[in-house]
Amino acid sequence: MLVAFDDKATLEAALAFEAALARAEAAEKLIPAAAAAAIVRACATIAIDAAELADETALAGTLAIPLVARLRQVLADDPAVAKAVHHGATSQDLADTVLMSQARVAVGLLDADLARLAAALSPLAERYGAVPAIGRTLLQDALPIGFGLRIAQWLAGIASARARLAREAATAVALQLGGAAGTRAGLAGKGQQVAARMAAELGLVSPPGPWHSRRDGVAGLATALGIAIGAMAKMARDVALLAQNAIGEAREPAVPGRGGSSAMAHKRNPTGCGVALAAAVRAPGLVAGVLAGMAQEEERGLGGWQAEGPALAELFMLAAGAAEAMACVAEGLDIDDAAIARNLAQAGLGHDIGESQAIVAALIAAYRSSS
Amino acid sequence: MLVAFDDKATLEAALAFEAALARAEAAEKLIPAAAAAAIVRACATIAIDAAELADETALAGTLAIPLVARLRQVLADDPAVAKAVHHGATSQDLADTVLMSQARVAVGLLDADLARLAAALSPLAERYGAVPAIGRTLLQDALPIGFGLRIAQWLAGIASARARLAREAATAVALQLGGAAGTRAGLAGKGQQVAARMAAELGLVSPPGPWHSRRDGVAGLATALGIAIGAMAKMARDVALLAQNAIGEAREPAVPGRGGSSAMAHKRNPTGCGVALAAAVRAPGLVAGVLAGMAQEEERGLGGWQAEGPALAELFMLAAGAAEAMACVAEGLDIDDAAIARNLAQAGLGHDIGESQAIVAALIAAYRSSS
Amino acid sequence: MLVAFDDKATLEAALAFEAALARAEAAEKLIPAAAAAAIVRACATIAIDAAELADETALAGTLAIPLVARLRQVLADDPAVAKAVHHGATSQDLADTVLMSQARVAVGLLDADLARLAAALSPLAERYGAVPAIGRTLLQDALPIGFGLRIAQWLAGIASARARLAREAATAVALQLGGAAGTRAGLAGKGQQVAARMAAELGLVSPPGPWHSRRDGVAGLATALGIAIGAMAKMARDVALLAQNAIGEAREPAVPGRGGSSAMAHKRNPTGCGVALAAAVRAPGLVAGVLAGMAQEEERGLGGWQAEGPALAELFMLAAGAAEAMACVAEGLDIDDAAIARNLAQAGLGHDIGESQAIVAALIAAYRSSS
Amino acid sequence: MLVAFDDKATLEAALAFEAALARAEAAEKLIPAAAAAAIVRACATIAIDAAELADETALAGTLAIPLVARLRQVLADDPAVAKAVHHGATSQDLADTVLMSQARVAVGLLDADLARLAAALSPLAERYGAVPAIGRTLLQDALPIGFGLRIAQWLAGIASARARLAREAATAVALQLGGAAGTRAGLAGKGQQVAARMAAELGLVSPPGPWHSRRDGVAGLATALGIAIGAMAKMARDVALLAQNAIGEAREPAVPGRGGSSAMAHKRNPTGCGVALAAAVRAPGLVAGVLAGMAQEEERGLGGWQAEGPALAELFMLAAGAAEAMACVAEGLDIDDAAIARNLAQAGLGHDIGESQAIVAALIAAYRSSS
Repeated sequence: MLVAFDDKATLEAALAFEAALARAEAAEKLIPAAAAAAIVRACATIAIDAAELADETALAGTLAIPLVARLRQVLADDPAVAKAVHHGATSQDLADTVLMSQARVAVGLLDADLARLAAALSPLAERYGAVPAIGRTLLQDALPIGFGLRIAQWLAGIASARARLAREAATAVALQLGGAAGTRAGLAGKGQQVAARMAAELGLVSPPGPWHSRRDGVAGLATALGIAIGAMAKMARDVALLAQNAIGEAREPAVPGRGGSSAMAHKRNPTGCGVALAAAVRAPGLVAGVLAGMAQEEERGLGGWQAEGPALAELFMLAAGAAEAMACVAEGLDIDDAAIARNLAQAGLGHDIGESQAIVAALIAAYRSSS
Repeated sequence: MLVAFDDKATLEAALAFEAALARAEAAEKLIPAAAAAAIVRACATIAIDAAELADETALAGTLAIPLVARLRQVLADDPAVAKAVHHGATSQDLADTVLMSQARVAVGLLDADLARLAAALSPLAERYGAVPAIGRTLLQDALPIGFGLRIAQWLAGIASARARLAREAATAVALQLGGAAGTRAGLAGKGQQVAARMAAELGLVSPPGPWHSRRDGVAGLATALGIAIGAMAKMARDVALLAQNAIGEAREPAVPGRGGSSAMAHKRNPTGCGVALAAAVRAPGLVAGVLAGMAQEEERGLGGWQAEGPALAELFMLAAGAAEAMACVAEGLDIDDAAIARNLAQAGLGHDIGESQAIVAALIAAYRSSS
Repeated sequence: MLVAFDDKATLEAALAFEAALARAEAAEKLIPAAAAAAIVRACATIAIDAAELADETALAGTLAIPLVARLRQVLADDPAVAKAVHHGATSQDLADTVLMSQARVAVGLLDADLARLAAALSPLAERYGAVPAIGRTLLQDALPIGFGLRIAQWLAGIASARARLAREAATAVALQLGGAAGTRAGLAGKGQQVAARMAAELGLVSPPGPWHSRRDGVAGLATALGIAIGAMAKMARDVALLAQNAIGEAREPAVPGRGGSSAMAHKRNPTGCGVALAAAVRAPGLVAGVLAGMAQEEERGLGGWQAEGPALAELFMLAAGAAEAMACVAEGLDIDDAAIARNLAQAGLGHDIGESQAIVAALIAAYRSSS
Repeated sequence: MLVAFDDKATLEAALAFEAALARAEAAEKLIPAAAAAAIVRACATIAIDAAELADETALAGTLAIPLVARLRQVLADDPAVAKAVHHGATSQDLADTVLMSQARVAVGLLDADLARLAAALSPLAERYGAVPAIGRTLLQDALPIGFGLRIAQWLAGIASARARLAREAATAVALQLGGAAGTRAGLAGKGQQVAARMAAELGLVSPPGPWHSRRDGVAGLATALGIAIGAMAKMARDVALLAQNAIGEAREPAVPGRGGSSAMAHKRNPTGCGVALAAAVRAPGLVAGVLAGMAQEEERGLGGWQAEGPALAELFMLAAGAAEAMACVAEGLDIDDAAIARNLAQAGLGHDIGESQAIVAALIAAYRSSS
């Protein structure tokens, strides 16, 4: 996931934007076909040091300025071609489209790990649906449950989070093309056609218009990530509680190099759960930061807009880290049937697990129909 | 909106839960029909001081304990009837269902104000779609836009927020019925039928199972409210900027008793915008609080669960306050065509508004098809 | 604590502001002594329905407008006296001073509960400093500790939080007097003298100037409350973990009417810990809301300023609720020496508690020197 | 500031910790002097690829494990020496001490930029203290102020933020040494002496005991950074508002390569203000994340602790970026006296700036006495 947001990926997405723009504008007769071909070729072959460009971007406050300057320099032999670069676009068009191109990749990667996690939980929930265990509320023994019911609830949370993420991505992961003030000036009335062509080429949604100052899509993605992280942290907290020495009903799998202690060789730490729980400590504030930036001034916000990118990337990385960690935990979850039985017996509250199995079945059915 | 969450509404929703539970359990032969009838009657006629009950709730840590005790006291003549009260349910079943009953009402109230706001913005956007005005990015004059394009972007943000709120409510506003540990023990295998009957009676969604420890629905509502508030704050910030004396392109309507100053009689303050902007300062942190509570321990969380209710209610109240204020602003927005023309002329950047009108039309069409 | 922020307390603090202003202005010869006497009398005797005034405040957007109007109405017989009311002050002067008057009371109440909590923890830490118990890291048995060392760490956290709160209050709980634009116009060059007199009368700090648009003091209070809540939640989480049935080393005291379950009579829930933990779920977002409002526009912010009051009041109430709950928990903490010994033995990691006792002594000494 | 937190700085601080530990333990006769000398030498000469170590750290979940393993490998010839590495310390001792070593450097760097910013504002405030300008409340013309009064308020906010940061650093930037469970086991009763020696060598505070599970110091730093960012954002928002074309009272200095537009050559964007405002959108959520992690379990938290480091580093970087940007803005602030006079005349609200000059003088005096 780091790779989806690094300097190299950012540069590639930016070059893909400029190439798609040129191709779409040529198709709509806004720039000459030969100019578009030269731009596309330059985008494919230009050698740029990604780190150097990142520094210039930091100074300029936007990636478009140094990137477009370099493309124009490469194409300087034919001034008409050089001028055709970035025609009708503005810095934010590039930046927002790059962010959404990266989000598209990131959603795919994350969804795959969430799917893996759900796929590991589903059979566990079924297998343990009728195994009586003590249920706990407010951290106190309550009444028996089917051990698999708790797992099915984790699954249901993950399934719901996946569905929400897909739903938000379905509108948010959209091309941005508005030009300097969001009017698509300079596109001779062909703005929507150009945008549609670009969206198709880049695998993005073609929205009804520019969304430069309207950030609900970005906020929707951020909140969906926050909720997904929360759903994983629910599972992580439960596993960490179950793994306590005095309880011992389930433990993370042993992974070489993981979960050790520099001072205590006997320990097997719930390190995977720690990854998800740390993500869940950080994510709510990152989501808040994106929401706090929504009131963006007029045709481009000062502060709110610039704050979004790093927060969204961080949320994707936290979510991906948690999903990868919890998928490993689920796939190797070390369940101790004897401990479950012993704790249940010690609670002395009987064995009636109510409708646990039926609920497990219903939650699994809902998960299957949603995925 | 205050009314939807006050002590009286809470009490009524709680009595409705107990009555619906009794009726559904009688229909499924879990308690005698006569007992159900007596419970339903008691719920309809019992006299309870809502504030007194709120105090007892604070002590007990849950509404169910004092409420059920009072109902059983009223029905104490027939111990079998008294025992049938709250049969198979737990405190959280009551609390979650009450919260969702209130959320159902609140979503309806809020959606009506958002619809009113959108209805006021739509004709304004059309009327001013072709009126050239200076567009501004990063708080600096950029290039001309159609004045109505900015309004259409506000509308698109509100429309998207309404759609998201409806989408989240469609799954979140759900009955909770799980019993002490979420297994529906004590319901003789009829849990899902009882739940379905109750949901139908209370106007709530009937979910595939209890969701006591799985809070993505609550989080989804909270984030949808946060995004709606952000969309309104975007409009509010723009109106407040346009209303600056040196710009003067649009001002809030004058409302008697509103927007005055205790020290300066000449002022006409953007008080409605202030309501929405203050909501937007507070909302992200409230959303973060709900997300931070998602990792709830095992079958009922300690801390995370208890934190949700006040935060969700506050978010509904902030959203409702903002929607009401911004609907008033939109309905009476005082647009100064001369100031628009003057500022455009001073910018000296021409009159080319690009495809503003076409984008306005596309955004309005998208709004119409979404509502 | 509720009482410190209710409508009645707000009204009283507002009348105290107007009376102190009149008295100070008379002392500096800015208004006639007789006018001041009449105003002071009116503030002492005027009958105002606090709830009605709250409604008018909500409409006007500020308390000063309806309150000053009523005072002037009462004093209307002598127009010079009526005019002398609120002389040179603005709405924000009243609102900020009222909030800080309430904060002053609230800091006192909270500090008393924190002191009570610390006083209960200190002897417990000493008594159990040398009692070997298993220490746990990442929720896994680690190595032995003195049981009192964990308690001493709670104490150190509380002591540090108290010191920070006192430090922040020492500058933040300040009078506000700036007039309409923060220049103290209309006070004939006597602004600082008037402010100093008012501060002395109201028990507030006299700052070097108005702070209307500079909110670091409010933010400092909010963050100190957030940290205090976090320190209490640390203790609460530990107690809740120790109280788990499988561990049983410490439990909350049984309080009649508290901690019960509507479905399970056998339960003794850690309800006090739940209060502190729920506060800690909500507080970070409330603090974030105050910080998010700091960038207030020019001489009075639109949105950021208005968002502060409710958030600060809520933080005080959460902190007070947590402090009261945890003081009760500390005072009655039910420690099970046998369980401590049993868990230690089961861990099989020896009895070496290192320098636990010395650290306990050092932490208690630091606490004593700080309080 | 990036340099203070990069992989190389982290590695150097970690090696400094191990060297200081060895030296202090030798001085207290806990390990042989020759072993300490060998360890110190190894720390000075060992060649480690910082990026490779970062990867291993991510896998192990802690830096100490791979680092100590490498040191022991280098020293493997003499098993007694190898064993003496990291004696009595645990992973968290290393991680917390490294973080605080970095914080110490970062506080110094940030304070220098804040001092630079304050030094630039102070003469501006004086020079413009008596220049009448229109004051604005709620974004509306209010009454005249001295133009320098607004600047003096920025200064006062920065000065207060610096003082708070210094105050928090004075206790927070502390050595951590507790050993596996925070008891300093294995140090033969010399723990406090070892800690004091290490603190002196590393330039850190020597606290009364380990603070592994008590995070108020970290939280105090994070909140001080959040408030400092808020104080800078206050100035940034004002400058951005003053720089609007229709107002034009002050603008950022022109910096080559900064503030341009990829689509509009005529623009001079308030890019420095944008840096500070974007930091202020992100910071409150990052602070919330640190506060949310305070309730750390028993002797080492799972999730809360691990979440702190990245958030604290990010806050330092945002604060440093904002301070550097606003220092540049202050140093080159382009104030337009004619625009100030014109806007004042247009407001038609006179020229009475009240006690602006006296307040400016008082705020500057307070700043001088605090720095």
